[in-house]
Amino acid sequence: MDNRPIGVFDSGLGGLTAVKELKRVLPNESIIYFGDTGRIPYGTRSRETIIKYAKQDMKFLMQYNVKAIVAACGTVSSTASKIGNALPVPYIDVIGPTAKAAAEATKTGRIGVLGTSATINSGSFYNALKQINRDFEVFTEPCPLFVNLVENGFVSPGDEVTQLAAQRYLAAMKADDVDTIILGCTHFPIIKWAIGAAVGEKVKLIDSGRETARHLAKVLEEKNLLAQDNAEPEYRYCVSDSVQGFRNVAELFLGGAIDGDIVRIDIERY
Amino acid sequence: MDNRPIGVFDSGLGGLTAVKELKRVLPNESIIYFGDTGRIPYGTRSRETIIKYAKQDMKFLMQYNVKAIVAACGTVSSTASKIGNALPVPYIDVIGPTAKAAAEATKTGRIGVLGTSATINSGSFYNALKQINRDFEVFTEPCPLFVNLVENGFVSPGDEVTQLAAQRYLAAMKADDVDTIILGCTHFPIIKWAIGAAVGEKVKLIDSGRETARHLAKVLEEKNLLAQDNAEPEYRYCVSDSVQGFRNVAELFLGGAIDGDIVRIDIERY
Repeated sequence: MDNRPIGVFDSGLGGLTAVKELKRVLPNESIIYFGDTGRIPYGTRSRETIIKYAKQDMKFLMQYNVKAIVAACGTVSSTASKIGNALPVPYIDVIGPTAKAAAEATKTGRIGVLGTSATINSGSFYNALKQINRDFEVFTEPCPLFVNLVENGFVSPGDEVTQLAAQRYLAAMKADDVDTIILGCTHFPIIKWAIGAAVGEKVKLIDSGRETARHLAKVLEEKNLLAQDNAEPEYRYCVSDSVQGFRNVAELFLGGAIDGDIVRIDIERY
Repeated sequence: MDNRPIGVFDSGLGGLTAVKELKRVLPNESIIYFGDTGRIPYGTRSRETIIKYAKQDMKFLMQYNVKAIVAACGTVSSTASKIGNALPVPYIDVIGPTAKAAAEATKTGRIGVLGTSATINSGSFYNALKQINRDFEVFTEPCPLFVNLVENGFVSPGDEVTQLAAQRYLAAMKADDVDTIILGCTHFPIIKWAIGAAVGEKVKLIDSGRETARHLAKVLEEKNLLAQDNAEPEYRYCVSDSVQGFRNVAELFLGGAIDGDIVRIDIERY
């Protein structure tokens, strides 16, 4: 038993979709979240910059005596696994658990991967899927505008701009007849409706935040690191830009009210 | 006569639309450009963060012995004029020249202003227009997604996603029957076609980069700071993220080939 908090970080607020899943799967766990809202987006930056940022993010969380760190960010997961795996606590990223879930879901072996440009260019999901089964046919598509559409509020089911953008991004993948698609960015579950409509409702959509939360639950159980059943979880949200900006959109990602302190921090100090 | 370069900066590459105009209006002038591609976008950040970034950007350019500094960024122009005006060289931002051009262009006195969230929330263009003529009726609309649409390549004339987004953002302004619209962000001229189609071709669109370039030409002339007629201009482009990322999109903004060195710098050092 271990009541220390879990550290979760993301380039912005998209990682809160993973926090939402973590709270569902692990209701006794305390969580400290860092969203690097002052330096978002990571997904269009160079590898070097992403690694520098990820190091600072992990260093910030480590000072809170966390028992595990989750990179709830497709871009960081795809780029900074070496740094994460060198941490003195378990490090979970979205790649492995999500690829495994997609591999279990597919029937035809034709799998699509959506993500930011950095995630897709890294080949992370592609390689993870091929490692599970080299006969899988994997089709990838960078969808950078999806992040912006979510962050700018183009999220109501049926929103025409988002629907049209999804049709554009997914046309090739639809033609490639995939039966399973990895939502390789934590923003994408928010516009799942548009992605589903663009490829047809039969295609299975794998939510990286959800699969990562499930995997973390297993890891904590195996390592005997779960919090006590009667633990009263505490949530703390840290951001690198304005707290007001966080308040404005966090509920969309969390799928409910903000239930903890919100603090602004200077990430450049780490 | 003064052959020192002009310093131009922007949160990213949008300011290159102003460089394009500068080169047209002032073909003998050398230009050193800084695009803060490592920290883009500014437009959704807090005032405090924008001011910190703008200070660093100006400090970086000043070390090149520039004879003037142009903030080719609606967001910085709207937020950091105090710092700019304290510089030991002329400081030009996009607000004044653009507001003046709009005031001259309007016949009905009904003027629209488009920009990032930070630009619109600052009230900068609104106040500048009201100061010129308090009877102007000014209608403002933040259009944050326009920046993303341009940066992600949704720019071909007739692109349906961009057209639909423009219709959404401009519906209220169209109903308000403006006769002149300020494009208060350097990205927006790239999708002028969509903005024009959304409000009707009769509405005059004022390009902040173009007006700022014209204004700088006047200032340099008045202060006897123009370069010699036979000066051979040099161009230098500095960015805070990858040079390759710059190469990929700079020609779109410059409206032609990249004609100078491209250097990556560490802006956090300034």
